[in-house]
Amino acid sequence: MAALRAFESAERAGDEIPEVVCFEKQSDWGGQWNYDWRSGIDEYGEPVHSSMYRNLWSNGPKEALEFAEYTFDEHFGRPISSYPPREVLWDYIDGRIRTSKVKDKVRFSTAVRWVEHHAEDDTFTVTVEDLTTGVTSSSVFDQVIVATGHFSFPHVPEIKGIETFPGILQHAHDFRGAEKLADQRVLLVGASYSAEDIGVQSFKMGARSVTMSYRTAPMGYAWPEGMEELPLIDRFEGDTAHFSDGQTRQFDAVILCTGYLHKYPFLPSDLALKSSNNIYPAGLYRGVVWEKNPHVYYLGAQDQWFTFNMFDAQAWYVRDLIMGRATLPSAEERAEHRASWSARFEALDGDADAVRFQADYIRDLIEATDYPMFDLDEVVRIFLDWKKDKKENILTYRDIPHRSVMTGTMAAEHHTAWLYELDDSLERYLSVPEQTELDELIAGPSSGSTA
Amino acid sequence: MAALRAFESAERAGDEIPEVVCFEKQSDWGGQWNYDWRSGIDEYGEPVHSSMYRNLWSNGPKEALEFAEYTFDEHFGRPISSYPPREVLWDYIDGRIRTSKVKDKVRFSTAVRWVEHHAEDDTFTVTVEDLTTGVTSSSVFDQVIVATGHFSFPHVPEIKGIETFPGILQHAHDFRGAEKLADQRVLLVGASYSAEDIGVQSFKMGARSVTMSYRTAPMGYAWPEGMEELPLIDRFEGDTAHFSDGQTRQFDAVILCTGYLHKYPFLPSDLALKSSNNIYPAGLYRGVVWEKNPHVYYLGAQDQWFTFNMFDAQAWYVRDLIMGRATLPSAEERAEHRASWSARFEALDGDADAVRFQADYIRDLIEATDYPMFDLDEVVRIFLDWKKDKKENILTYRDIPHRSVMTGTMAAEHHTAWLYELDDSLERYLSVPEQTELDELIAGPSSGSTA
Repeated sequence: MAALRAFESAERAGDEIPEVVCFEKQSDWGGQWNYDWRSGIDEYGEPVHSSMYRNLWSNGPKEALEFAEYTFDEHFGRPISSYPPREVLWDYIDGRIRTSKVKDKVRFSTAVRWVEHHAEDDTFTVTVEDLTTGVTSSSVFDQVIVATGHFSFPHVPEIKGIETFPGILQHAHDFRGAEKLADQRVLLVGASYSAEDIGVQSFKMGARSVTMSYRTAPMGYAWPEGMEELPLIDRFEGDTAHFSDGQTRQFDAVILCTGYLHKYPFLPSDLALKSSNNIYPAGLYRGVVWEKNPHVYYLGAQDQWFTFNMFDAQAWYVRDLIMGRATLPSAEERAEHRASWSARFEALDGDADAVRFQADYIRDLIEATDYPMFDLDEVVRIFLDWKKDKKENILTYRDIPHRSVMTGTMAAEHHTAWLYELDDSLERYLSVPEQTELDELIAGPSSGSTA
Repeated sequence: MAALRAFESAERAGDEIPEVVCFEKQSDWGGQWNYDWRSGIDEYGEPVHSSMYRNLWSNGPKEALEFAEYTFDEHFGRPISSYPPREVLWDYIDGRIRTSKVKDKVRFSTAVRWVEHHAEDDTFTVTVEDLTTGVTSSSVFDQVIVATGHFSFPHVPEIKGIETFPGILQHAHDFRGAEKLADQRVLLVGASYSAEDIGVQSFKMGARSVTMSYRTAPMGYAWPEGMEELPLIDRFEGDTAHFSDGQTRQFDAVILCTGYLHKYPFLPSDLALKSSNNIYPAGLYRGVVWEKNPHVYYLGAQDQWFTFNMFDAQAWYVRDLIMGRATLPSAEERAEHRASWSARFEALDGDADAVRFQADYIRDLIEATDYPMFDLDEVVRIFLDWKKDKKENILTYRDIPHRSVMTGTMAAEHHTAWLYELDDSLERYLSVPEQTELDELIAGPSSGSTA
């Protein structure tokens, strides 16, 4: 969507843009934000793309992901809270381009099967399948942008004895909602965002207990009663997990929050990025140009503090390279650029340092394009506030408003605290509930007049 | 495995066989019978192949699937029961070729990415990815056998309101065991083998209730108390399903037993079979030769009454075509053959008729090869007995022994009735438990001395 918007932006400014075709496996755009109730395999037999769950709310402040050239104010016409639920965020990214003609450039329900590069004329044959008909076809392109993301193919590690765990067992990728975990003893394997958020979602939805298992270090939040962190799992025996410190617990449900794979099954290995999830993947100049073949580009291949606005910065720069508005430096200069950024990346010390690194990375891209520059240092400060808010209370950080660096607008205080809001819909989010209704929500169903 | 064995058989008989390379996505062979505890996506980020669950026991008598040239007697050295669990069947099919050298012809953990036919020299370029390294490579072949099966890609239909069903929701493909359904109100959507078997498994494992929803007709077994069949689901509202007859039920878990897709994402559409699940798919001569390109073969593309021995008959015939031991009739003769079998297929009247059709289909193949002919009419009779046994008692039909048509051996009565056996392992199956242990199993845990 960022790439489409980047080309559209150039076209609106009067430039002639190249022919752009976007192949999208899903029947609509939005990627991760396009919720699919299915898990595992989708309606056409393809691996489900989105790892989204029904009751997901943004886990970072929206002020850190806001588009510089399409603000929340412009979309919603009034201040909203800093941590909107999925449907609200989807509406925002859709809203930026829903009225433009770029949707015509997208061939939905079309899976890319294979990409082949022809050295003789430096073109690519892209073979796709129209999933609605099963018909495969090939076309030739001069440049290829890979914008499939890397939070779609779950990393599902082996754990001794897990093959006979008798309860609910799934990867976070397949998790669609925590309601079914009410009254359950829940184990989350992992100590990153998935474990943290599915953990508090489970707590919110009434899990009997929530245990999170870490490999390296605990997340260390001030967990409420009923949530705990334990070290690595040594093995399962039936429904019992044995932890490396000798403790044991019985569980009804295990959610593997064990991360995702960079996987590009449609690419030959000389074009496919192989990387762990980090903020400066090897093999990419400025994080986007595939060094082994600079007509192949990756968007969003990094681990992400910044998201939407980083994708924009990347898309604008890639657009400018493709359109010849920016010149790709020589291989030597690229190698130098990479080496200096890699050195800084390798020396990063802690999260605050990493956030600043990503801010500087984005600045470097924006400076090369006409994407509106924004106050990246202020966004870093918002991230640091966010981290502090989470440390203070992992259950209430989403209730705290932040100020937009794009518009200066202070976010609204939401009508309902995240912990008590069970309706994640756009309609509910934008509604203005009565005070009595809110009182009842907080008091809980037992004191309400209906069951 | 049938194709590898077919070529091996010719080689042992002194024939020179062509170079054979088998690409297998999983890290071991056995296809469906190679249990994967993962669901959705496997260890390498590929769609999980097997739809097998831990506590699956054969749902047809083993006497109907026995290899004609490797009998259960030869493998186990003594009579075993007629409905063995998964691990026992895997051991049997593995045992036939584990000591031969054919495993060297298999490149495990290797996914086929794309197959391209070159009309100019009638060859195929097959591009694969070694999943352990990510390295892709291509090789040229003269003939391609597609033996991936068609019970791997779930058909997951839309049902109104299902996107917010709050309980356990999965397709039968992702189902790994019924223990987690104890005390749950379980809905199975479908009225074929998956619904029937996951239904009785859920009952066996203590589900509070089991409801099965049919589109066309109920299965009509004499379900025990706690199991029922209802018509089509009109919609879900929260955890409540509304059925087309106006009844409603609340559920804790929904398992979609809604079948599978013929899906061959590595094939261009002019080589890919498109079919519903039926016993005479269109486009295949003798059920195996792709009419549009007779150097492409499919094994096991049919719906199946017969299984292992049908795959053998197909594999032997395809081997003979490839080795020039059998001659492919002219396109006209093939069309005539197809037309006459299609006409009979279209006129099939009920299951007994369909079983006879498949027996005749197999006879037609075996007669063209040196695969040992066996008493197909007697196997039909066994199938009809099986159907009768199921009608009489869907919970006990697996306890009834049948006689092998290959060896004349009467199956053993198993030491433990299926309904009471909770340990599905090979070790347990082949053990000789004490009578007191069996008495305790049947009496149930409440009367045992330990909790």
